[in-house]
Amino acid sequence: MKAYIEENKQRFLDELLDLLRIPSISADSQYKDDVNKTADFVKQKLKDAGVDNVEICPTAGYPIVYGEKIIDTSLPTVLVYGHYDVQPPDPLELWDSPAFEPVIKKTKIHPEGAIFARGACDDKGQMYMHVKAFETMLKNDVLPCNVKFMIEGEEEVGSDNLGIFVANNKEKLKADIILISDTSTYSMEVPSITTGLRGLSYMEVEVTGPNRDLHSGTYGGGVANPIHTLCTMIDSLKDDNNYITIPGFYDDVEEVSADERTQMAKIPFSEVEYCADLDIDAVEGEAGFSTLERTSIRPTLDVNGIWGGYTGEGAKTVLPSKAYAKISMRLVPNQSSEKISKLFEDHFKAIAPKSVRVKVTPHHGGEPAVTPTDSVGYRAASKAFEKIWGKTPIPKREGGSIPIVALFEEELGLKTVLLGFGLDSDSIHSPNEHYGIVNYFKGIETIAEFYQQYVALVK
Amino acid sequence: MKAYIEENKQRFLDELLDLLRIPSISADSQYKDDVNKTADFVKQKLKDAGVDNVEICPTAGYPIVYGEKIIDTSLPTVLVYGHYDVQPPDPLELWDSPAFEPVIKKTKIHPEGAIFARGACDDKGQMYMHVKAFETMLKNDVLPCNVKFMIEGEEEVGSDNLGIFVANNKEKLKADIILISDTSTYSMEVPSITTGLRGLSYMEVEVTGPNRDLHSGTYGGGVANPIHTLCTMIDSLKDDNNYITIPGFYDDVEEVSADERTQMAKIPFSEVEYCADLDIDAVEGEAGFSTLERTSIRPTLDVNGIWGGYTGEGAKTVLPSKAYAKISMRLVPNQSSEKISKLFEDHFKAIAPKSVRVKVTPHHGGEPAVTPTDSVGYRAASKAFEKIWGKTPIPKREGGSIPIVALFEEELGLKTVLLGFGLDSDSIHSPNEHYGIVNYFKGIETIAEFYQQYVALVK
Repeated sequence: MKAYIEENKQRFLDELLDLLRIPSISADSQYKDDVNKTADFVKQKLKDAGVDNVEICPTAGYPIVYGEKIIDTSLPTVLVYGHYDVQPPDPLELWDSPAFEPVIKKTKIHPEGAIFARGACDDKGQMYMHVKAFETMLKNDVLPCNVKFMIEGEEEVGSDNLGIFVANNKEKLKADIILISDTSTYSMEVPSITTGLRGLSYMEVEVTGPNRDLHSGTYGGGVANPIHTLCTMIDSLKDDNNYITIPGFYDDVEEVSADERTQMAKIPFSEVEYCADLDIDAVEGEAGFSTLERTSIRPTLDVNGIWGGYTGEGAKTVLPSKAYAKISMRLVPNQSSEKISKLFEDHFKAIAPKSVRVKVTPHHGGEPAVTPTDSVGYRAASKAFEKIWGKTPIPKREGGSIPIVALFEEELGLKTVLLGFGLDSDSIHSPNEHYGIVNYFKGIETIAEFYQQYVALVK
Repeated sequence: MKAYIEENKQRFLDELLDLLRIPSISADSQYKDDVNKTADFVKQKLKDAGVDNVEICPTAGYPIVYGEKIIDTSLPTVLVYGHYDVQPPDPLELWDSPAFEPVIKKTKIHPEGAIFARGACDDKGQMYMHVKAFETMLKNDVLPCNVKFMIEGEEEVGSDNLGIFVANNKEKLKADIILISDTSTYSMEVPSITTGLRGLSYMEVEVTGPNRDLHSGTYGGGVANPIHTLCTMIDSLKDDNNYITIPGFYDDVEEVSADERTQMAKIPFSEVEYCADLDIDAVEGEAGFSTLERTSIRPTLDVNGIWGGYTGEGAKTVLPSKAYAKISMRLVPNQSSEKISKLFEDHFKAIAPKSVRVKVTPHHGGEPAVTPTDSVGYRAASKAFEKIWGKTPIPKREGGSIPIVALFEEELGLKTVLLGFGLDSDSIHSPNEHYGIVNYFKGIETIAEFYQQYVALVK
């Protein structure tokens, strides 16, 4: 297989670059046509790779691309999930090259080059590895089991319609295990496999003071300023120890065992390098936990966006009518997204002073998830890494969310293996997102190897 | 004169509407040509009215339109100041009709109609009354003294170049009194004359956390969120009694006498109507002062704008690198704009946690000012109101700022009479700014009458 990948290296790369050129921004309706175009692109590439029954499955939102290769119903089936939509690229001015015009540049961490483009890692690059790994196995007659592909276009906006699709197609999606590459590995030297994911509650709040924008000279000091009030309310959501103050927020939080915390502490981590990479003088987070713990086993609250009043050039002495913020919470095992969203909404309304009115709108949410290290899937993934990377990967809890992992377990009763090859430094969701060339090709190899190991373990 | 105004009513109105159609937004550089076009328009109209030596005086920014009518050097000279630039009209979506397509509509307060357009009141409408009052006096041979006009185009962005112009043209601007219509009168039934204005310090702040936007799942909880930090810092600028916490902020504040506060308390004011007009359930402000006091004799701090992170449609799980805010403070007599700006900058930097970096940029400022009620100018204005409105006006402290009033006193040693005819409900600096037709024509009459009264008192 290694030889085949080597021979087709350039084509494998060019196909990914073509995929990255389509701006499939699911959060912004003006890119509707491009998102649909991307679905067609994925459909065609699955066909070209030799996948059967490839179809575009319409949903209330963006379509799901489905395809399968059933070689023997007595063999196990791997269900591959990925997404073809991407995050909005803004702020555009911070990109060194256009977000949808992929370029390959060498970096300190990627001396052999990395692909710079929105979606390069999350998740077009990682999703496409599976298409190429499948092609490689098929063309070399080493596909050891059945495969099903389910590639969606709404992951970055909450996968609302995927849930409906899964619930309505349990038979079609029948499988033995789910395989996803949408996470990161610790480093090129220290590979890791994600065993835990945080859940998410995402809220939008609107604070209204006066019914119209006012002159801050005429009214300033006499009425509540909704921006100031919003700031006060946001500030109050955390105390001086950075504990979240929403009543009941921590009630269901899984307390991680001292043993697992000891394991985590072994992960090579340098706070100095961490601060240097981010150009900050100090970290900040919940008292009593390390940075790695704060970003993986502990729930968090972040303001993702805020706006109100005059934000243009120069000075406008306005006392605005409204102020807005997008606030999201990362959840850990046992916390429920729905419950936390409700707790937030009730609390945020409760702390609003009489001088303003508050509206709270929940966006998408997702449940946390855990993959046991003693599961067949995890063990097969670990062996695949050992063979291709020459190292035993570390089990790693990740801070991000893939809400559908919990959904799959609930609806299909299937465990997921998170075979991720990105790096935390790949700037996903940020300007200059990139994905290492080596990661891409090593990922294709590791995925193909996973199939061999998995089927061997199951037999 | 009344007859002449009546005969030319339609023309006086049409000329103002033409002036309002030019979007002279000084804060937004993309309107540069329109702002300059407006200066030419004003120049032409001054000439048409019979003003001599009308010229466009270039500055480092937008030009100042100057003109004069010297009928007898032994007679007193009135220097008229106004501005032809306007505030940005946004948020555009809240305008019922386009900001620069003036329309006349009846309102509860203006049963005879009001002109809806950006600048209708502030200050094109009020400035243009002086051009028409001058024309009226000249055409009817009742101009009793010399007049000088100085109309600038940078009032809404701080009048930086006006200060230089005034300092360099003291001889040219020699006069006995300055007349400005850029303030409001209490109501149609209860006319008032502004005797006090608040000063202004306007700051822009930038809070930087990580050097790039981050994925809130991967980094959330581990590093400072600059939006959250900015909110905490803004919240801390006021305590629970809405006192401003900046050390030394109140040191120079003029304590208004119990007698003046008693006078103010006589101004008819209904908190119920005030709340109803703004559609708020409660007022909010500094403990120990009434709403009228909070908005006139007390200094204030308002957030005029805030932005950071993702503010588009949908949900983006970003932990942003930067957050920004525009924060302004209204100052009262004896406070210095420069000193307060420095106090703010030092304090804001001092309260920043180690996990972020803060940049503070002062925008324009202005000093507070007071016009004594026993001055000749005030007495002449009072008599003019009595004659035209049939009522003695109330002296009124206003919350807004006209920085150049303090500048004129300092540079030219001249007192200013603030003969304003707008209403606080005119929505200046807000969507749907408007100016009453009756206010416009009564204003022209009152201004012409002021000249007669003033010269009579001086003789």
